[in-house]
Amino acid sequence: MTNTIHMSVQCVLPGETATAHRHNPAAVRLIIKGSPKAATVVEGEPMVIESGDFITTPMWTWHDHRNDGDEPVIWLDGLDVRMVSWWQTLWQGYDQPRQPLTRPAGASNKLLAKARPLWLESQHRTPPLRYPWNDTAATIEMLKANEGADDPYDGMKLAFAHPLTGGPTLPSFACGLQVLTPGRKTRAHRHLSNTLYHVFRGTGATVIDGERFEWSQGDIFFVPPWTAHYHENRGANDATLFTMDDWPATEALGLYREEEP
Amino acid sequence: MTNTIHMSVQCVLPGETATAHRHNPAAVRLIIKGSPKAATVVEGEPMVIESGDFITTPMWTWHDHRNDGDEPVIWLDGLDVRMVSWWQTLWQGYDQPRQPLTRPAGASNKLLAKARPLWLESQHRTPPLRYPWNDTAATIEMLKANEGADDPYDGMKLAFAHPLTGGPTLPSFACGLQVLTPGRKTRAHRHLSNTLYHVFRGTGATVIDGERFEWSQGDIFFVPPWTAHYHENRGANDATLFTMDDWPATEALGLYREEEP
Amino acid sequence: MTNTIHMSVQCVLPGETATAHRHNPAAVRLIIKGSPKAATVVEGEPMVIESGDFITTPMWTWHDHRNDGDEPVIWLDGLDVRMVSWWQTLWQGYDQPRQPLTRPAGASNKLLAKARPLWLESQHRTPPLRYPWNDTAATIEMLKANEGADDPYDGMKLAFAHPLTGGPTLPSFACGLQVLTPGRKTRAHRHLSNTLYHVFRGTGATVIDGERFEWSQGDIFFVPPWTAHYHENRGANDATLFTMDDWPATEALGLYREEEP
Amino acid sequence: MTNTIHMSVQCVLPGETATAHRHNPAAVRLIIKGSPKAATVVEGEPMVIESGDFITTPMWTWHDHRNDGDEPVIWLDGLDVRMVSWWQTLWQGYDQPRQPLTRPAGASNKLLAKARPLWLESQHRTPPLRYPWNDTAATIEMLKANEGADDPYDGMKLAFAHPLTGGPTLPSFACGLQVLTPGRKTRAHRHLSNTLYHVFRGTGATVIDGERFEWSQGDIFFVPPWTAHYHENRGANDATLFTMDDWPATEALGLYREEEP
Repeated sequence: MTNTIHMSVQCVLPGETATAHRHNPAAVRLIIKGSPKAATVVEGEPMVIESGDFITTPMWTWHDHRNDGDEPVIWLDGLDVRMVSWWQTLWQGYDQPRQPLTRPAGASNKLLAKARPLWLESQHRTPPLRYPWNDTAATIEMLKANEGADDPYDGMKLAFAHPLTGGPTLPSFACGLQVLTPGRKTRAHRHLSNTLYHVFRGTGATVIDGERFEWSQGDIFFVPPWTAHYHENRGANDATLFTMDDWPATEALGLYREEEP
Repeated sequence: MTNTIHMSVQCVLPGETATAHRHNPAAVRLIIKGSPKAATVVEGEPMVIESGDFITTPMWTWHDHRNDGDEPVIWLDGLDVRMVSWWQTLWQGYDQPRQPLTRPAGASNKLLAKARPLWLESQHRTPPLRYPWNDTAATIEMLKANEGADDPYDGMKLAFAHPLTGGPTLPSFACGLQVLTPGRKTRAHRHLSNTLYHVFRGTGATVIDGERFEWSQGDIFFVPPWTAHYHENRGANDATLFTMDDWPATEALGLYREEEP
Repeated sequence: MTNTIHMSVQCVLPGETATAHRHNPAAVRLIIKGSPKAATVVEGEPMVIESGDFITTPMWTWHDHRNDGDEPVIWLDGLDVRMVSWWQTLWQGYDQPRQPLTRPAGASNKLLAKARPLWLESQHRTPPLRYPWNDTAATIEMLKANEGADDPYDGMKLAFAHPLTGGPTLPSFACGLQVLTPGRKTRAHRHLSNTLYHVFRGTGATVIDGERFEWSQGDIFFVPPWTAHYHENRGANDATLFTMDDWPATEALGLYREEEP
Repeated sequence: MTNTIHMSVQCVLPGETATAHRHNPAAVRLIIKGSPKAATVVEGEPMVIESGDFITTPMWTWHDHRNDGDEPVIWLDGLDVRMVSWWQTLWQGYDQPRQPLTRPAGASNKLLAKARPLWLESQHRTPPLRYPWNDTAATIEMLKANEGADDPYDGMKLAFAHPLTGGPTLPSFACGLQVLTPGRKTRAHRHLSNTLYHVFRGTGATVIDGERFEWSQGDIFFVPPWTAHYHENRGANDATLFTMDDWPATEALGLYREEEP
């Protein structure tokens, strides 16, 4: 938990429904353990939850979660509720536990494709979206095989782009993945934003202002603003970190800076 | 051909190569008759050309066309060369007829997906892209089945969105598809931009300042700026019009207007 | 004091120097009692402080205050330090109490005029500026005499515009003046942002969620986010309120809303 | 005259009125010989015309010119009519030769000052404005005395900034002044835009793709797109060039480039 954004782990048990509501904090979910019989329903559309999927419920979008399978589903929850509460947290419950399904599964991914109806842009400043793991994994494979591109501070880095503008995931924070290949050690930098990390896969370490933090799959850790940090993968496999960073907020407020210490 | 943009039909015969070059006019292609053995190669990446695909070669991107099959391939060519020539048309030939392949087919669609490496944004203001027909058709089907959305002046309308910003296809002109379901007659409007139409599928008519133009598959027609026009599908099947419109130019210059006459 | 921005009153005594420094919180000053022998020096330029002047020292601009006269000078201080501290408050002292004067008084107002050298845009995202009271008063007079324009919720409203973009004063908060003519009662509204008020001149009342707050010259009061409020001038003269509002922050974060309750 | 913008010299004789009208081409005027008894009236506001003033009548703003003095007034006229005509030139006459005066002289300069009513932003995308010579000259003096700033290709350069956004004068072209101090010789560059020059004061020469053009006060000359050019002042006084450049158009269309040849 930071002053602005936080991460937590949520579990929906078999038969359980997280009742429908909406609020001005925005939420994102990274699916750790999915199920073909569970779904997050956002604005009337069931979002399939397969492991590795990333799903957004931006500000003021109706959402409920349901698990009609036999196994619990688990995901990582990210919210900007602490930032939003500096002003006012608004919350509204739906009049039923589950909102009606008004769109088929997969609708948003078709309606927000590269060839798309622009008239849909006006409904939400940030429309909700599922970023399927299969697509994400294919992009990572393409990068590894062909581009060799690598950020000096972050390794191979993917952003979950805003579905309309191509900018950061949400106006208040950006989400992405960092892939560190075996042996990869990044350069140190520091920046004026909060970064929360979840170890999606692999093991490694992050050194923050000289202090070493070892991590492995499932861990959550936090790099505070303006602390020098670098990452290291000393395992035999790729390490993949999921990141939430509030740089869109500090950038908008004119505060963002970045430097090598 | 308008004062700014034009459309033409191009055919690449079996065994033919359109030699590699780049220029500051931007070009787009709508594939009318594709082939698994032909390709447009843009910036080192072979773009598959299947019927209905839409492919961009934005300003100053290297491109060549090759047909290693037994059948001619045919596409519709759209260019802003007349607009660009008001300033200066720059042109550069590659030192070989065919540029080397430096990226696998499909690379751009993975690198410009919703989860993507943002460091790629800096190479071209508008990166080249193939908009596969399969994806476009799936979006049209979703619209028809579930959304019932329809622009009063244009029918069901899809835009080929800019791969980075989500805005118009190119800074100088926008491309899209208009689908008119059987019996659909749109309302008349007029706007300060040039629109070129190619009848991708179906038959119908467009009435421009009171004059009726019947059209059927393969036709090309032009609606001049500030002329009132509406469309009508009197056939038994969907009519699909491919459009090129220079509204991004008149909008940027502060000239764009639209009204019901 | 709110969660994000605050107002306070600062006094610089005769002979006193507030030593030179810079920090990532941004500050603004509204001069209550000025002096021809006192100045705020920002980035090497002495800013004259006459009563009613509004002066900005945006993020990371060097500034010191000096009073070489015989009377104290008094101003209203506004800062976004609480918002900035969610990330990291950076602070740097200058190596002398007073920075050297490298530009004549009035330089910024000439260099940031309507006809101006655009190459100056790159030094600070928000360059510091003095908004002289004489100019502000002339605009108010023009509005009163000729335009009759009036915001239904705020009365006659002036914004201290960003010197380069014409947008809000600073990326994190906007400053302005509201003039309520005698007898003016505004309509109620509420919005998702913090507003701090200082009564620059006149007397009146603001009703916040049904509670009435009477105010007169020199008072400071606060309208919390999402509370319905309206203003009333029941005096014989104009009432002028100075406002600081963090709507640029909530707008950037996608949170801003406004409605009649 | 270029393919996009042109310059001409206009004279209004004593007693003459150029009747009121508006059109979608935008116009600018640089006053060569003004008069206290003549005015350009734009949107109901009389704009004083003193020598050296720069006045805009952006797209679709009502304007008429009147000379009630005893001397002719002369100005330089700049228009984007050729660019606009690629689409459609719209023109509308007022129902009287002279529009009624609805605002006092000087209103716009007060209403568009740094402290201003933001509600005025919505009337025209580019509001008309007079840039008084006195202000322009004061900025030039400040630059010469204190900043020593100089563009390597253009000398000391001022832009007539857009009154709301601080960007180029108009969406289609930008106007400014270049001051070359005695002996100043600039570096050569070329760019993809049309530049028209009027010699406001002084003498000198411009070398365009190796050809030398000598100029003196009152001359008009043209640097075509993508031609290498540099300027030289070999006189004893400052040389001041007024420039119109359509770079905002080529920039918006994604075409703009600049380089040393």
